[in-house]
This record gives sequence, structure tokens and C-alpha cells, in this order.
Amino acid sequence: MKGIVQKHTEAKLIDLGGGTSRKILAYNPELMAVEVLFEAGAEGAEHTHPHTQMSYVLSGKFIYSVEGEDTLLEQGDSIVVPSGLKHGTKCLEKGILLDVFNPMRQDFIS
Amino acid sequence: MKGIVQKHTEAKLIDLGGGTSRKILAYNPELMAVEVLFEAGAEGAEHTHPHTQMSYVLSGKFIYSVEGEDTLLEQGDSIVVPSGLKHGTKCLEKGILLDVFNPMRQDFIS
Repeated sequence: MKGIVQKHTEAKLIDLGGGTSRKILAYNPELMAVEVLFEAGAEGAEHTHPHTQMSYVLSGKFIYSVEGEDTLLEQGDSIVVPSGLKHGTKCLEKGILLDVFNPMRQDFIS
Repeated sequence: MKGIVQKHTEAKLIDLGGGTSRKILAYNPELMAVEVLFEAGAEGAEHTHPHTQMSYVLSGKFIYSVEGEDTLLEQGDSIVVPSGLKHGTKCLEKGILLDVFNPMRQDFIS
């Protein structure tokens, strides 16, 4: 169809190591949705990228850091990380973040 | 902090009528996250906008239409609607869509 659909049951689980894994969901050049699954204690190491990022907590609890400032995020909480800011997360209770990027993350599919 | 945080408990529920309501979540100029809550049978009427849209099914079941082509979306399913394409939805089972827009929807906050 003219919309780009990703059925959840058909999304591939990619093991990233260290208790984290990823499912790439629907995307086009402007937007890419990605689920990132964390075991308790797993970390998303601090990093930067030019893409603007929105993270929404589908489940679990996370300490989310942007440029060294920490905040606690729980189910339903959301955060936008502007382009180029250093960010990372530590999972306090097993859960899933829905990350949405603008533009899409070409590096995730190549 | 330098990230833009929206705690879910502090997001205001806006009644849109017809069995739908909205919570505006975290946003900056590039990305805006919005929960849209639907009663069973409620509809998001077909419309267009220049913003690219990603919809992720947090709960419930939806028939989602893009340019007249329908698809069934269930929990975890996602869809990207490119800029300018006509889209709408009908809720089959009460639920919530997480919509993310690029750029942000200025019309939602003014």
C-alpha cells in the first residue's frame, strides 16, 4: 500500500549484545521507528548522531541522560533529543523503548 | 534538562469529540509525539498534511487507510504516512495510537 507498514510479528529481532536488542519498524527517508529491548541493568552507551530522536517508554524503567543530565523515565514518558546532543540510557527495570528518528537511520540498515 | 521530557502523568488529555482524545507528548521543532485515544467505533476522519507521520499501535485494533488502501493494525504494528498522502483510521477495538510527526504539528499547540 502507499503507507509503509511493518507488522510487529514480522519485525526481525537483532541482538546487539550486552542485554540489548532491536527491532526495526516502519520507516521512510524522514522517519524511522525502532524498538530497543533492554534487560535490567543493560545500557545504551552515550553517543551522538545528527538525527533528532524521540524515545517513548513502552515498558520498564530507565535513567536517560542527555549531555550529562539524568532523568527517570517510566511507561508512557517521552523525551526528545535534539540533533547532535550526547545521550545514553541505563535500564533499571526490563523494558522497551520506542525510538523514532528524523531522518531515518541509514546506518541501521546498511 | 537539555532533552525535552514529557512525563506521561503530566500530559493533558484533550477531548476531540466522537470518542477520540489526544495527549501531546514530548516535542521540538523536528519531532512531536502524540497519543490518540479511541473508543471502539471512533474514527480519525481522512485528512492530509505536509508532515510525515508515523503511527504505532500501543493498544487496540485499527483499520488504517492511506489513499484509499486499508490495512489492519494491531498492537506493535507501525505505519509511516509520507507527506501529503490522504489517511484516516477506524478503531475496531478500543485503543491508543502513538503518532509521531516531522516536523512538529504547530496547529496542535496554537
